[in-house]
Amino acid sequence: MSSHPDRECPLDGDMHPQEMIPSKKSAVLVDGVVLNGPTTDARAGEKFVEEACKLIMEEVVLKSTDVNEKVCEWRPPEQLKQLLDLEMRDMGEPHHRLLELCQDVIRYSVKTNHPRFFNQLYAGLDYYSLVARFMTEALNPSVYTYEVSPVFLLVEEAVLKKMIEFVGWKEGDGIFNPGGSVSNMYAMNLARYKYCPDIKEKGLSGLPRLILFTSAECHYSMKKAASFLGIGTENVCFVETDGRGKMIPAELERQIWQASKEGAAPFLVCATSGTTVLGAFDPLDEIADICERHGLWLHVDASWGGSALMSRKYRRLLQGIHRADSVAWNPHKMLMAGIQCSALLVKDKSDLLKKCYSAKASYLFQQDKFYDVSYDTGDKSIQCSRRPDAFKFWMTWKALGTLGLEERVNRALALSRYLVEEIKKREGFKLLLEPEYANICFWYIPPSLREMEEGPEFWAKLNLVAPTIKERMMKKGSLMLGYQPHRGKVNFFRQVVISPQVSREDMDFLLDEIDLLGRDM
Amino acid sequence: MSSHPDRECPLDGDMHPQEMIPSKKSAVLVDGVVLNGPTTDARAGEKFVEEACKLIMEEVVLKSTDVNEKVCEWRPPEQLKQLLDLEMRDMGEPHHRLLELCQDVIRYSVKTNHPRFFNQLYAGLDYYSLVARFMTEALNPSVYTYEVSPVFLLVEEAVLKKMIEFVGWKEGDGIFNPGGSVSNMYAMNLARYKYCPDIKEKGLSGLPRLILFTSAECHYSMKKAASFLGIGTENVCFVETDGRGKMIPAELERQIWQASKEGAAPFLVCATSGTTVLGAFDPLDEIADICERHGLWLHVDASWGGSALMSRKYRRLLQGIHRADSVAWNPHKMLMAGIQCSALLVKDKSDLLKKCYSAKASYLFQQDKFYDVSYDTGDKSIQCSRRPDAFKFWMTWKALGTLGLEERVNRALALSRYLVEEIKKREGFKLLLEPEYANICFWYIPPSLREMEEGPEFWAKLNLVAPTIKERMMKKGSLMLGYQPHRGKVNFFRQVVISPQVSREDMDFLLDEIDLLGRDM
Repeated sequence: MSSHPDRECPLDGDMHPQEMIPSKKSAVLVDGVVLNGPTTDARAGEKFVEEACKLIMEEVVLKSTDVNEKVCEWRPPEQLKQLLDLEMRDMGEPHHRLLELCQDVIRYSVKTNHPRFFNQLYAGLDYYSLVARFMTEALNPSVYTYEVSPVFLLVEEAVLKKMIEFVGWKEGDGIFNPGGSVSNMYAMNLARYKYCPDIKEKGLSGLPRLILFTSAECHYSMKKAASFLGIGTENVCFVETDGRGKMIPAELERQIWQASKEGAAPFLVCATSGTTVLGAFDPLDEIADICERHGLWLHVDASWGGSALMSRKYRRLLQGIHRADSVAWNPHKMLMAGIQCSALLVKDKSDLLKKCYSAKASYLFQQDKFYDVSYDTGDKSIQCSRRPDAFKFWMTWKALGTLGLEERVNRALALSRYLVEEIKKREGFKLLLEPEYANICFWYIPPSLREMEEGPEFWAKLNLVAPTIKERMMKKGSLMLGYQPHRGKVNFFRQVVISPQVSREDMDFLLDEIDLLGRDM
Repeated sequence: MSSHPDRECPLDGDMHPQEMIPSKKSAVLVDGVVLNGPTTDARAGEKFVEEACKLIMEEVVLKSTDVNEKVCEWRPPEQLKQLLDLEMRDMGEPHHRLLELCQDVIRYSVKTNHPRFFNQLYAGLDYYSLVARFMTEALNPSVYTYEVSPVFLLVEEAVLKKMIEFVGWKEGDGIFNPGGSVSNMYAMNLARYKYCPDIKEKGLSGLPRLILFTSAECHYSMKKAASFLGIGTENVCFVETDGRGKMIPAELERQIWQASKEGAAPFLVCATSGTTVLGAFDPLDEIADICERHGLWLHVDASWGGSALMSRKYRRLLQGIHRADSVAWNPHKMLMAGIQCSALLVKDKSDLLKKCYSAKASYLFQQDKFYDVSYDTGDKSIQCSRRPDAFKFWMTWKALGTLGLEERVNRALALSRYLVEEIKKREGFKLLLEPEYANICFWYIPPSLREMEEGPEFWAKLNLVAPTIKERMMKKGSLMLGYQPHRGKVNFFRQVVISPQVSREDMDFLLDEIDLLGRDM
């Protein structure tokens, strides 16, 4: 257990973590610093890690997944600042105090692993990806060169290959990124590079106005990407959707003609498979036809809906995805790989990704290495240091197998279906629309509004219901789900079903609890 | 420990992790899927996590920090693919098999925690940040809204405030990003927004050519950023440096005049504090004078050198940094917070960061929440999901105190000094230049070259030495340090000193080992 034979004997009991300077007979001093031996007390450090692991196991892995515990222990910001000892001081804190801090951090953190956390497009605890994540943190790799990350680069290659297979391509390329927003940015830049490779060196100045098309229901990262990439948010053309939130292909084509007529240069269509709020899937085949006709890059943002590809039953939702040029798909959402795990997949095999992104840093990507440097994939990335996010998905896939992942998707969607039917049965609940996926959008109409006509006053009052119930549920800590207004519709709840920890009992509870919290309104 | 009262009794012994479907008397079936109770076998999962934690503790935390162990167990890519069972199959693997896989992953991964891993600008094991990272993985938060990440948002605020204090600003703003490259991109976009806010909506098309200035020794992310942001790599103007790798201010000013004369629009100067290869620090005060004269945004890429701000002795290296408009600083490097932990700090307090980046997603950043939504800082980011990277640095800072962090920096630099003096003393070793920081660049000149004149043949032969020694050290697994050619200089070693696990004995070993591996050349 000793990392150096000559290190200091650790003090017993409660260590003060200030690093110790060993005193030696033959001490080498430079600038007043003793340089013999390491200054870290490894044994005390290891003991601290062990104790903290026990705490994490008990308080998070076991307790935060317990349906009888609270989802959150709400405190308003100013009060929470008082409760937490946030200040960093000149002197460090002893281990027992640090463990108390850890306990406080856990106590006041939202339990995203809890079976009744339905607030985001991720939830639940996957034991396998969790182990992979612990390993990653302990090994602390950075995935850019084979020499530093041999295992994680090969794992990434294997996972990308498998994901590409599920998209329906024979081959392809890809990279894992810190989130779907960044993956969408990569795709946008790649499409731009394909359209005009000179932009990499020359920039956009002096070029005609580039324009891209996406649905009015797309993720907000499209606007962020267009602004960041210097394209400009006004050059994101939002195509109207139908009643279910799907892009209308005829509208897309009309807007492409229109933009061309106005002198803009269309270069990209971003379809969405699984929109953020409604969970809608754009008709990919029809959109691909249009892209082919106009020579446009087709990117599919399947960050949320991509997981349906794992299910033979539901992959039809993404019918036509194999015709896309690039796909963003986040296994950290329905496949529970942990924040963050997001792949950008690219159909091109002419090394477009590398050509578009490489900067050829000679201190990192030396060409005279003794191994095949095509494994040094870091130059495909906008990042330098990069985390091995593929690894956590790999571990879960190894553990559950493709069939186990399929079962998870099927079950989440069956539970969603159950909830939809319950909502239809219950008084005071009203579906926004028939969902295609695991987003169930609905209003709760409290008794006082049930007899009211659906006019402006009704909608104004209904708009206040979800925020009020949300406040009450968080203060009680009984569950968490999101609400939002959306394209003219007043605030409604969006229930997201993901985790295999969740059962129909939780769906029943959800509706009972909303009714309990809102029936006096 | 039970997460649901009605879940199945787990099987004993070695579990197959396929999730179990409970059979119930009153089973609710939808689409053939039983919906009663959770399908996860929590007890088996917990046991797996516990066993894996034990393995991680023994094989990584304890063993990989042991100086008597190998730094790496080198296998070429094709052979490693054979050794690892990478394929993802239809059926999952049992727990005992998964644990074997974990063991293989650890075995063939490079031990970046090892005292003789000197290959990158990060190294070593910090027990406190490691605990924070384990907590993060278990809690699986995403830092965008206060409702989901109350603790981690407050921690980020506190850490940013403290870092801003060390930069020397009274107040400021900031955000943690996935790495210094991304932080540099943020700064570039922010400077552009400040220069012309319309670019956010309108894009760069039709605008004059924007141009930015950085030193010839800057990080390669500058080029990546300019290309990604649509500015173009040709519009990155590389300013010549002096013999120590520092930007020459007079050259900067000359190039600014020149660019303006050619009709380009200068908007940004990126100075570097701690260059990647040489560890050079640009003269910030003189550069700030020039930026003031020309009305240019000054960004300082202190990703590597920022940690010197923690030391009263060495913060003079960054003299003038308080005059910068933005600073990138990565505590995951010398302060050992773990990959990744990178802050972009911004002097502006007029909410520039938010104005520049916001997309106002109404499903996430609702304005009618029951708490102060100014804590929902996610809209300052280009990401949607974002990891709580500030937390790991916070934990280390709490544990060691400012004085403990200062001591680490002072010791790393004292050890560097020791190594420099040893290199000067030893035959066959030749310093490239007197370092200012923890990058020690040197050639090893094997006996056969020691009498040769320093002509083209000498340099051609010397160029082969470092790659050959690198190959030998990796195959032996005795240490890892990087080499590179650099601006006309043939391949040389770059030794980076960081971790408190390291001692002068490791410095001596480094030189002995290089000599041992190369003396037959």
